[in-house]
Amino acid sequence: MAGIARLRDFVQGMTRLADGGGGEAEFLAEGASLLRGLVAADDWLPPACAVVGPGYRQYLLHCDPAERFSVVSFVWGPGQRTPIHDHLVWGLVGQLRGEEISTEYVLGPPGTPPRPGRRDRLRPGEVAAVGAASYDIHVVENAVPDAPSISIHVYGGNIGAVRRHVFDPGTGEARAFVSGYGNDAVPNLWDRSAG
Amino acid sequence: MAGIARLRDFVQGMTRLADGGGGEAEFLAEGASLLRGLVAADDWLPPACAVVGPGYRQYLLHCDPAERFSVVSFVWGPGQRTPIHDHLVWGLVGQLRGEEISTEYVLGPPGTPPRPGRRDRLRPGEVAAVGAASYDIHVVENAVPDAPSISIHVYGGNIGAVRRHVFDPGTGEARAFVSGYGNDAVPNLWDRSAG
Ligand SMILES: [Fe+3]
Ligand SMILES: [Fe+3]
Ligand SMILES: [Mg+2]
Repeated sequence: MAGIARLRDFVQGMTRLADGGGGEAEFLAEGASLLRGLVAADDWLPPACAVVGPGYRQYLLHCDPAERFSVVSFVWGPGQRTPIHDHLVWGLVGQLRGEEISTEYVLGPPGTPPRPGRRDRLRPGEVAAVGAASYDIHVVENAVPDAPSISIHVYGGNIGAVRRHVFDPGTGEARAFVSGYGNDAVPNLWDRSAG
Repeated sequence: MAGIARLRDFVQGMTRLADGGGGEAEFLAEGASLLRGLVAADDWLPPACAVVGPGYRQYLLHCDPAERFSVVSFVWGPGQRTPIHDHLVWGLVGQLRGEEISTEYVLGPPGTPPRPGRRDRLRPGEVAAVGAASYDIHVVENAVPDAPSISIHVYGGNIGAVRRHVFDPGTGEARAFVSGYGNDAVPNLWDRSAG
């Protein structure tokens, strides 16, 4: 895993951004630029964080020790998609492998189905932003019918620990959930003797 | 691994200490107190970071993203010991399981054997400090003849990446080395859904 230095550099860049004390706007602008650099090459993701599961998987790659941000690898097998869900923190998505489609949902009156809004297709190397105050509710799905797709997400908190919501597609009813992570061990970014 | 919260709390405490901008003295004093709390209970070390190898093993548990400190699990099987080595950064050692003996070495004139100095035996729950300016050269060995010993080390840098030295026991000659780490993946401290 020689390319792990790319992920280490990204984490250090994001940490400097957080230490700089900027808010969501700075994270989304400067973080998007750093994330674009990270997903420009596909030679660094440890294989353990690219494994397809029976449902979509979220592997933690790094969590800031002060939980100001986290970096996650999302792996979709063919046909896999998330439920309708929110985040409650800012987010950045960089496409690493394959393609995915994000469909925004807008809640209607209680008891009515959420309505689909914007639909965005991400191709390798592309980066999209989601804000807590806009475009916070969506469904993400693999856009490739016969291969996995993988995207790298950055969130403005420890996303696996945020108490957020999934929404019933028929009634819009919200149910609280905490996603956790699919992995008990995260990549060791710090063995500089290994490159 | 319900007790992983102990390690997370320790990492967050050390991070706050580093953010406070103190120097070696603060780290050694306040860090020792935090480390004493960590090794007071032996219910949190992930089994993957307690595996005995053919030689002593060093498993990274956490590295500060700015590389201001690192936390490592040292595992000694029966009869295992380090070479004579230095660190070049401050260090704290907390005994978790078993017992270990640290023997200080003092370099003599070139071509002569380093001479043993202080000899310290650490028992479970005890914490010792080493400073870059004093007691920097030593040998550590398992003091238990028939079981593994494990201690938790904290260093003032990314210890696996520090270019430091081992010393020939006959001539005192220094050879540069970078230790790296025994693990490609470190514990995921951040899945608060898992406790
Ligand atoms: Fe999402
Ligand atoms: Fe040592
Ligand atoms: Mg889990």
